[in-house]
Order: sequence, then structure tokens, then C-alpha cells
Amino acid sequence: MTLSGPFAPDVPTEIQRAIAAVEPPDPQWAARASERHSRLTMPSGSLGRLLDVGRQLAAIQRTVEPVTDPALVAIFAGDHGVAAEGVSAYPSEVTGQMVLNYLRGGAAVNVFARRVGATVRVVDLGLASAPDGLHDHSHLIRHPMALGTRNFLHEPAMTREFAFAAFAVGLRLAERWTSVDGARVIALGEMGIANTTSASALVAGLLGAASDRVVGRGTGVDDPGLARKRNVIAQALKNHGDRITDEWDWISRVGGFEIIGLAGLAVGAARRRAVVILDGLISTTAGLIATRLCPPVRGSLISASLSPEPAHRIALDAMDLRPLLDLNLRLGEGTGATLAIPLIACSAGLLRDMATFDSAGVSGPSA
Amino acid sequence: MTLSGPFAPDVPTEIQRAIAAVEPPDPQWAARASERHSRLTMPSGSLGRLLDVGRQLAAIQRTVEPVTDPALVAIFAGDHGVAAEGVSAYPSEVTGQMVLNYLRGGAAVNVFARRVGATVRVVDLGLASAPDGLHDHSHLIRHPMALGTRNFLHEPAMTREFAFAAFAVGLRLAERWTSVDGARVIALGEMGIANTTSASALVAGLLGAASDRVVGRGTGVDDPGLARKRNVIAQALKNHGDRITDEWDWISRVGGFEIIGLAGLAVGAARRRAVVILDGLISTTAGLIATRLCPPVRGSLISASLSPEPAHRIALDAMDLRPLLDLNLRLGEGTGATLAIPLIACSAGLLRDMATFDSAGVSGPSA
Repeated sequence: MTLSGPFAPDVPTEIQRAIAAVEPPDPQWAARASERHSRLTMPSGSLGRLLDVGRQLAAIQRTVEPVTDPALVAIFAGDHGVAAEGVSAYPSEVTGQMVLNYLRGGAAVNVFARRVGATVRVVDLGLASAPDGLHDHSHLIRHPMALGTRNFLHEPAMTREFAFAAFAVGLRLAERWTSVDGARVIALGEMGIANTTSASALVAGLLGAASDRVVGRGTGVDDPGLARKRNVIAQALKNHGDRITDEWDWISRVGGFEIIGLAGLAVGAARRRAVVILDGLISTTAGLIATRLCPPVRGSLISASLSPEPAHRIALDAMDLRPLLDLNLRLGEGTGATLAIPLIACSAGLLRDMATFDSAGVSGPSA
Repeated sequence: MTLSGPFAPDVPTEIQRAIAAVEPPDPQWAARASERHSRLTMPSGSLGRLLDVGRQLAAIQRTVEPVTDPALVAIFAGDHGVAAEGVSAYPSEVTGQMVLNYLRGGAAVNVFARRVGATVRVVDLGLASAPDGLHDHSHLIRHPMALGTRNFLHEPAMTREFAFAAFAVGLRLAERWTSVDGARVIALGEMGIANTTSASALVAGLLGAASDRVVGRGTGVDDPGLARKRNVIAQALKNHGDRITDEWDWISRVGGFEIIGLAGLAVGAARRRAVVILDGLISTTAGLIATRLCPPVRGSLISASLSPEPAHRIALDAMDLRPLLDLNLRLGEGTGATLAIPLIACSAGLLRDMATFDSAGVSGPSA
């Protein structure tokens, strides 16, 4: 038998070990949370999906008093060679410019993170260009793989070795953020011009979805751009499709450094029993990669926000995830995931802080 | 011509003046907010409904830098004579018991309010009974109209004069909370065993909806209880329907003190340019009363959370409101409205705190 996928011979031991170490959430703790919910001063089930989230948190953390602070928003950034095909409304320089914007606190995700009490971390996984002031910014976490990926229309976006390296960055940051910083919730954010093209190709490749079902407008590409994007993805799936031996081949051939890094972050966070919040298409694709390599990760994922990108719904359905919010958000950068943090924190708060019928002296339902 | 409705001869001058003083939001400020949105560092329109909320806040407050703090959750409580018909899963004592629970900080709404940084205020508009320790609780705001309403299956729930008085309580508290406390956002919460029966009858009466379309399970009444509830509402609509001269007749004949008080609170808050967040069926019915008496109030309302109660959707449609959240919440007490506070605060934060393309040195879309 030939080993492939997560345990293929060339997959570094560090990654194989991390994947093998992830345990699924414990359903016994979900049951204990349900029992506690039934004693809290509210009609049975009356807080709907917040109770589902509470059970999930209890099962992840093995406690009926789950904790969601500190919460961290991780923005992984990288550029994409396929941007040269005119698949995005914005030029590649915007990736680095927005990274500087995150570091200076001026982006939407910063506004939301400040409001909800989450810390933002910004990681360079492979920017193609950097505006003045970026590289000497003390808060930028630098793990650049290259000056962007290669153009996957013509060649693999990266080698398998680069994919392993990007994944390992995510694993190691998960370890640091959960142990040193004690993060209990990690929201996945990203920036990378053209990365909906890469993510759509990944969803199509990993799930065998038809290329014309996965393509959307990303940040708002016009009709000719949308047609180019559709053609690029269809052609790339055809070019690479014959040479696929396992998930890592899809990941490296049409992926992006920031997407793969986030997949590693999800696996590393799940291993450390932190909650992973998925945002829109890109981070959900990272979640899909993580669950394909390591199915127990699924139990640590919460989907925050439904994106209009068609591939987002396909990836969610494949993981049986349903977003908490449907506000027509399509910005990415972790904005939707950050908005979900208070909902998740409130779900935990119910279990930790609510009075029971007994303790509050409240009568139950009439017999 | 006979004056009726908001300006009927018996309506107290205080109420008539408040209703006449409400100005609708200013669309010029919404347009200015749109212009500002277009310069912020994100693709046009990419934060969907948060941008709609931002425009509404700007139009209400006449500024492109709207403010959402302090935020206040107002829980109005009252009992309902119709509870004697067995229309609720819980006995009437639970109203007072839960009021004490709110004052002690043990209910779901308290957990949420603490998390989102909102203050809770609890008002007795007419409890039928009080547990030990309630009446001497220093934080209870006491404006009891009576020991609950009368049973509207057999007689009017209250006189028009009582309805005016309950409405005026809301008006005055809005005045105090917006001026003394400076509240910019007021979330409407409520407690009153059997109040979904009252609210459903109000929706049917005010909107002419068929009684069998408005009835739901409330806190979880069983099948026989649901049948009783349906019969009670149908019979009450028939009994009172012939004697209706204006909105105040419906309001007083099948309403509840807490619902009418919240309607007054909505009018008073709108008059002071505060944002009013509606929760589930009960507070949305209060919003419906407010907009029927005073149409400009509509512009100050935000719907937080979709309830499974069928009358909720009918009331929302009548006001052309769409909830921000759909999490299968059916608790009431202001829980859904409180969960929406961070979304609304983040919508304001985008306008106040985000960088523009120019200020951040970020390139716009490719030409």
C-alpha cells in the first residue's frame, strides 16, 4: 500500500505528527453542556444556535464552563502569480498596502477587532511587493515563502516542499499563540489579491466540483474579468488534474501561501483545543484543506459568515457547516469571523454565568 | 372630521406632542455616509448590510461619525390576565421571578449585556405578583399600572387611559435615558407570561391579519395549549373587533402594559434620535404600535433577530424590516436585540475609524 495524503513519504514528520495528534471534540462534554442548558433560566432550546455553539465549545474544551478569551484574529497574507491573468479588480500591490493598513489599525477588521476585544496578528507568507514602511514595521510577523506564488495557469503555484513549509508556519504560530498567548479562539483572516481564484480552484480540485460552479466575482471583478477567471480556473484544473496523486498536489499546484498557512493554523489550533472561526471563501477553503488532511479538525470549526462566492457554499456543504451570519459580507480579511466572536463568547457565557431555575427561584413550566 | 388615532381628543397632550415631534432620519446624511463608505479601504459595498446600518445611523444622528455608546437594554415587564386561559407553558409568577433574575444579573440577557458593554434597566409596568426581595430591590424602576391586565377574552385588557399612562411611562424613560444617561442605542426587551398571546392579537388586530396566521408556540406551549391560544385570540378579535374606533382601541383592548410602554419608549427614543433595536415578536409589536401612531419612528428602528413566531414575520413585513440575525432565538427579554449591539457598533465604527484609500496609501481598483 502506498501512503499518500497527510502521511505521504515526503510530508515532514512535524506535519504528520501534528495531524495525528488532533483529537475530535468529546461528545460526552456536549451532553453535559446540554444537561446544564436544561437547568438555565430560559425555556428549553430558546436560544437556538447559540446553544449548539455552547455544546461545541464544551466538547472542544472538555468543560461545561468554556472560555473564549483571549480571542485572536490571524491575518495571513500572500500574493498570487495568477493575478497576472487579470482575474482581480485590484492590482497585486494592494496586498502589501493592505497589510500595512492592518498593522496601522485602519482596516475594517481592525475596527471590528477593537470593538469585540480581539487581538490582530499579521503574517507575511509571501508578498510580491511591499510599500515603504512595511518591512520595518515591528508588528509584522515575517515568514515569506517567496515573492508570491507562480502563475498556476502555466505551472504549479509552488512545489510540495513550499506547501509543507507554509503549512508548518501555521502549525508553529498556532502553538505559540495558544501556549504563549493563551488564545482560546482564533479567527482566520487573509489578504491576497487573486486569492479567490486560487481558493475556487482548490475547492473544485479537492471536491471534484465543476469549474463553472465555483467562480464568483471576488472583490468585484467586471464581466470580462469574470470570464477570464472562469477560463483560467477551467484551464488550470485541466492542466494540473492529470498529475494529482494526493491532496498536497492540489494544494501546492493551485494553492496560495496564505491559504495553506491558514490550513496549518487550523490544524495546530485544533490540536491545542482552540476554537477556529472561518470567515469567507478563502479561510473556509483553508478549513477544507485542514479537514481533508485531518478529519478531526472539523469539530473545532465554526463558520461565521456566508459569502456570495459560489465556492464558499460548496466548501461549507462538504464540511456540513452552516454560517452564523448572513449579512452579504464579501470583504474577507477576517471581518465576518471577527463579527462572530461576540456570538461565540455569549454562547460560552450562558454556560458559565447564567442562573439556574433552582438558584434563581424561578418556576419551571406548568405541569 | 373626527380626530382619531394618535390625535384623538382623549389622547393626552404629552403623547400628542411627543408623536408630533419625531422627525424622520435625514436622507442627506445617508448619502454623505455612502460617499464616505466609497472612500474607505475596502471594495465597494463589500460589507453588505453593515453599510446599510451605517447609513441609517448617519441619517438618524445627522453625522457621518455616528456613535452607539452608551447602549442600554430596557426590559419592561407586565402580567397578562389572559394567562388564566392556559395559553402559556409557564405560570404568571414567572414574570416577577424573572424580573428579580434580571436585577440580580442571572438571566441570558444579563450575560449578553455584560459581554457587549450595555447597561440593563428593568421596569415594572404591572406585575401580578412579586417574589420576596423584588419590591425592595433598589434597581427596579417601578411604574406599575395594575396587578396585570384584565383577561381580554372577556373584557378589555385595560382602559384607554391605562394605555395612555403606560405609553407615557415609556416616553418619559426615553427622555431620561437619552438625556441624563446619554443613551444612543436602546434595545427593547420584555418579560410577561402570556405576552405572545397579547402581541399576536395586536398584530392581527392592527394589521387585519387572520387570527390563525398569527399564532405560535411562544415559550413552548404544548398542542392543547396552542389550540387554546388560537381559540382565545380568534374569540377576542371577534369580541373586540366591532368596537374599534382607532389604534388605541386595539392597543388597550388586547395589549399589555409592557408592550405599550415599549411603544412609548420607541417613540421617545426616536424623538431624541436614539437608535431603537427590536428583538422578537413582543418588542416588534411595540415597534409596530409606535409606527402606526407615528410613522417617522420607522427610520429609527433596527430589527435584530428573526423569531419563529409567525406574527413576528407579519409585523416585520408590515414595516419593511429585515432582521440582522437568524439564529432560531425565541427567548425574548431583549436577548436578540442585545446580540445585535456589536454589529451596530461595528457599523458605526467603520464610518468613524476606518482609513481611506488616500490616507492609507492603498491603490483603488485597476482602471
